[in-house]
Amino acid sequence: MPSFELHPVFTTDFLTLGKLKLSRVFLNHDSRYPWLTLIPERAGIEEIMELEEADRVQLMSEIVAASSVLKELYNPDKLNVGALGNHVRQLHVHVIGRFTSDPAWPGPVWGHSAAVPYQPHVAGVTADRFIKALRPFGLSEIAA
Amino acid sequence: MPSFELHPVFTTDFLTLGKLKLSRVFLNHDSRYPWLTLIPERAGIEEIMELEEADRVQLMSEIVAASSVLKELYNPDKLNVGALGNHVRQLHVHVIGRFTSDPAWPGPVWGHSAAVPYQPHVAGVTADRFIKALRPFGLSEIAA
Repeated sequence: MPSFELHPVFTTDFLTLGKLKLSRVFLNHDSRYPWLTLIPERAGIEEIMELEEADRVQLMSEIVAASSVLKELYNPDKLNVGALGNHVRQLHVHVIGRFTSDPAWPGPVWGHSAAVPYQPHVAGVTADRFIKALRPFGLSEIAA
Repeated sequence: MPSFELHPVFTTDFLTLGKLKLSRVFLNHDSRYPWLTLIPERAGIEEIMELEEADRVQLMSEIVAASSVLKELYNPDKLNVGALGNHVRQLHVHVIGRFTSDPAWPGPVWGHSAAVPYQPHVAGVTADRFIKALRPFGLSEIAA
């Protein structure tokens, strides 16, 4: 069985928050949208339908965990959930808090415009808030 | 308990295919992409996280059913799954077969450009193919 390998884009352009039971959780490095990305830790998977049934149920549960945390921390006007993968094929699920005042509204955020990274002094604080809020849903640290 | 009411856009701009256990299934009236939309038959729901747990698990199963049918009928290069709802708030989940040769590739289809409806003589045949392929997944007719 091949081992799970993370596509390099997720370690360079995203902030790693930790791991839920199935998925690694990342904060997208775009300060304009509160945006989490879930990556099931399964090797070679590109589509939700390729996951085993128990993993699909767990993924749904983790989508709801990410949604709950976004709702708790930001109270967005709408949540957007998406698994696209047209650029990076490794299965990853976006869970994004959207506001009617955000730059891409009412369109999708994907492909809208270049990210505006968090300022260095804000990135860590923001990641810490997410980590704290995700812990009740089972977030653990990823062993180095 | 309020009764389920379908947002009118889904009866005018979409072709009704039938109903799975939880969701009504629609074919988007855009001949450029094989595109199914699932609408859980639950009143007042705008977000996946608002569904009860059993419904969320069922929705995941129906996303996979829609994915399987798209794969079987079109063998797309990638599947895109999305629940956005920025324009129409009623919870609806898109499952779309994407091709590297389609007009929006590699961007998202949402907001890309105006739909190119199926020609009348093609729409019925296409809907029938989907209905036939969805029946093994439990698709039934919607009582008028």
